[in-house]
Amino acid sequence: MIKNNCLEYFFEPSRCAIIGASKNTNKAGNQIIKNLISSNYLNNGNKIFPINPSETGEVYGIEFKKSFVDIEDNIDLLVIAVSSNRIDEVVTDIENRMDTHGDLKAIITVSAGFSETGTIEGITKQELLLNCCRKNNIRVIGPNCVGIIDNINHFDSSFILGTKRVAGGISIISQSGAVGSWLLMAWASEKPVVGFNKFISLGNMADVNTVDCLEYLGNDEDTKVIGMYMEGYKNGRELMNAAKVVSRKKPILVLKVGKSKISSKAAQSHTGSLAGTDKIYDNAFKQYGILRVDSMEELSDTLRAFDKVKLPKSNRIFIISQAGGPGVYCLDNLADNDICNLASISSDGEQKLTEALPSFASIGNTKGYIDITAAADADQHRKAIEIVLEEDSVDALILITVPTLFVGAKDMAYSINQAVINLKKKGICKPILPVILYGDSVSEARTILEENGIMTVPTPDRAIKVLRQLIRYSLYLREGKIC
Amino acid sequence: MIKNNCLEYFFEPSRCAIIGASKNTNKAGNQIIKNLISSNYLNNGNKIFPINPSETGEVYGIEFKKSFVDIEDNIDLLVIAVSSNRIDEVVTDIENRMDTHGDLKAIITVSAGFSETGTIEGITKQELLLNCCRKNNIRVIGPNCVGIIDNINHFDSSFILGTKRVAGGISIISQSGAVGSWLLMAWASEKPVVGFNKFISLGNMADVNTVDCLEYLGNDEDTKVIGMYMEGYKNGRELMNAAKVVSRKKPILVLKVGKSKISSKAAQSHTGSLAGTDKIYDNAFKQYGILRVDSMEELSDTLRAFDKVKLPKSNRIFIISQAGGPGVYCLDNLADNDICNLASISSDGEQKLTEALPSFASIGNTKGYIDITAAADADQHRKAIEIVLEEDSVDALILITVPTLFVGAKDMAYSINQAVINLKKKGICKPILPVILYGDSVSEARTILEENGIMTVPTPDRAIKVLRQLIRYSLYLREGKIC
Repeated sequence: MIKNNCLEYFFEPSRCAIIGASKNTNKAGNQIIKNLISSNYLNNGNKIFPINPSETGEVYGIEFKKSFVDIEDNIDLLVIAVSSNRIDEVVTDIENRMDTHGDLKAIITVSAGFSETGTIEGITKQELLLNCCRKNNIRVIGPNCVGIIDNINHFDSSFILGTKRVAGGISIISQSGAVGSWLLMAWASEKPVVGFNKFISLGNMADVNTVDCLEYLGNDEDTKVIGMYMEGYKNGRELMNAAKVVSRKKPILVLKVGKSKISSKAAQSHTGSLAGTDKIYDNAFKQYGILRVDSMEELSDTLRAFDKVKLPKSNRIFIISQAGGPGVYCLDNLADNDICNLASISSDGEQKLTEALPSFASIGNTKGYIDITAAADADQHRKAIEIVLEEDSVDALILITVPTLFVGAKDMAYSINQAVINLKKKGICKPILPVILYGDSVSEARTILEENGIMTVPTPDRAIKVLRQLIRYSLYLREGKIC
Repeated sequence: MIKNNCLEYFFEPSRCAIIGASKNTNKAGNQIIKNLISSNYLNNGNKIFPINPSETGEVYGIEFKKSFVDIEDNIDLLVIAVSSNRIDEVVTDIENRMDTHGDLKAIITVSAGFSETGTIEGITKQELLLNCCRKNNIRVIGPNCVGIIDNINHFDSSFILGTKRVAGGISIISQSGAVGSWLLMAWASEKPVVGFNKFISLGNMADVNTVDCLEYLGNDEDTKVIGMYMEGYKNGRELMNAAKVVSRKKPILVLKVGKSKISSKAAQSHTGSLAGTDKIYDNAFKQYGILRVDSMEELSDTLRAFDKVKLPKSNRIFIISQAGGPGVYCLDNLADNDICNLASISSDGEQKLTEALPSFASIGNTKGYIDITAAADADQHRKAIEIVLEEDSVDALILITVPTLFVGAKDMAYSINQAVINLKKKGICKPILPVILYGDSVSEARTILEENGIMTVPTPDRAIKVLRQLIRYSLYLREGKIC
């Protein structure tokens, strides 16, 4: 198989045609056009061509074409959104188009009903499409995928509902359209909305596969971190070789499912992926620099962290809590983890804290932890952060605070931000994860911090998990192996 | 010590005085009056008496009193919100009041600066207050607590910000004011808001302690489930004896911190509680019917579940997923749990499912699991639920669905609700936990279900954890021991 390595046409085509375009708002061929327009695809002189022999007039102000033949422009990307039963016609159209124009570079097939059905009929349809594309040097994503989004290039060819198109440094490769949609819907619901760069729904991987995408995103300057949802991959060696190269350049996080016999069997029915023995994957991930996460929440949190938070130098962390209970809860979660250790601080540092903090503050009783108590005002929060992060022995900080009558959430946010600014002036740029408890009543404070580039997490347990992965990657870059 | 067992005055006093009442909105003595008024405390003929010798005029329309002497009504409950440095004066006032009126039944002391400081001065102050109360047969909650809320009796004496006062069957006992506030703020941010009955912040437990509250809530008809945040308890036998009685009547969930040496030491600095060996607590909890949870999220989810969801008969659960990826993810989480098993269904049931569902649906490949695929419409969701729950071998159901263009979130919600109604007509009332993925875009659908009494959870992993605890309690009632 000849690969033209033209994956860029999946993210920044200048002419995009949709076979199966529709006026019916319940059809993928309608939503894709809506999403393309909403993503501002048309603003840079790009063009959309809705194709449907049965439709007349316009869809979202764009005139329908009866077929390819009617299009004079060169088409880069074709989206196939018709029933798999019509794949014969589509393939004939592609052949004709390539004979006359030779223009198509990439095809996204969102339609289902191909090899994922496990039927001979479905497999044959997929082969038909694939053979046509191989012959004509066209790359294919799908079938049975939900599309591609690129927020930097303003291109959304997906039929996902409810996403918000904010750009960021995260890119996603998902073997499940639903899991991908879930992540994007979650990010659209965060306050502030979590931005991302590229989203790739792989579907059946008839042609473009995990490794192609991993390599492409590895070389993509705008991708700071790669997140993957994976059920299995048939060529493990190829995947690990790619991971080895890419993971030195940027972190790769994977949520690999099919851990148990039962779930692995279900994964096979789903995307036909052999999930393989989980232990083998687990070891290979560690060896080749892939950071495995255990839950969707951890995937989401850690992707955000790698995009926003500076890597800690090592694993010595400090916890400042303004509230005893949540502080102890955080320490419990720390004790359960295998990577983060508590940092000692100097007696000089302890002395400074004693002078700066309320008299009841608990300093020096527990290694790596102080309870500054609810009596601590906003400026005492600032001082505590600065004193602790000025210590050479501290690599990262979790700050837990519960806004009260005495100190409002916004004042706390401004003080935390000020501490970060003051530390920067002294050349100290260490990760700090503020946990402001909780919910809607502190969302303004969290937004203030996020807008100043300081990532926040909702709970202490999630803060520990995030720091754990940041440290794992930091140690990997130094030691060449994931702990 | 004589106990008058008058805990009811903490929840439904008809006359409530606040020493340290203030016009200053940054003071607890202001917020408490604001919260009392917001909770509609005054609507049933109850009265509030703000006391402060230095204040004149009104606070929120209620006239200040210079001292107790000026109050003619009988006072049931006194809230102390002045600095601990003024405890001498307060105690003298209480003594005088009891001499002249003999009316006080209960005192909530929110002020800090008592035994929790670990200083002789603080301990002496607490002793002074306690001795006065013992002598006069007055029960005390605190010091160093954030107050009491009772949403059924419309009484909020706390100074917590951001709560919403919706009534429900959950009651909370918290050894940390901050953890309690965190939970209530979390529930206030849920859509729809999570209701609760009583919230008790214990503080230093000078008098009223965990066991008093556990017994009281055990006898409280409006409390369906009890949630506790615990750092430690000095009289383990007393606690376990109380738990043994109460846990037969209603579930008790506990988040017990101080698992590790480090966190246990920090807990000791916080509330002076000896956390003890975690393993001992763990075994005792199991023996005496207390359900232990591992995180705040699990505490919140399972409390909601015990309030809303019928107990499953046993541990045989079934998973219906409309999306492959999230389904496999759910199976992974199921494999990690120690209680829930997958349920077999009859060949007759499988036949019915095959007839009712889309041709690509994956039925019978994985025990206890079907993937109905994105091709399943709303009515096919309904049919699948009904067919599965009609099976005798199924005790509970998780339904995972990702709304798409083809089936909207609201339609799915109505279909799920219809299935529950249809099953009820046939006398089948088994727990069903719908997981609609994800976020803001499905919040209307979740609200439809919640308003119809069907609890929803945001993710498949959380659904497994919730069912696990429901099953643990169900098996405990049958077998007398927590698995």
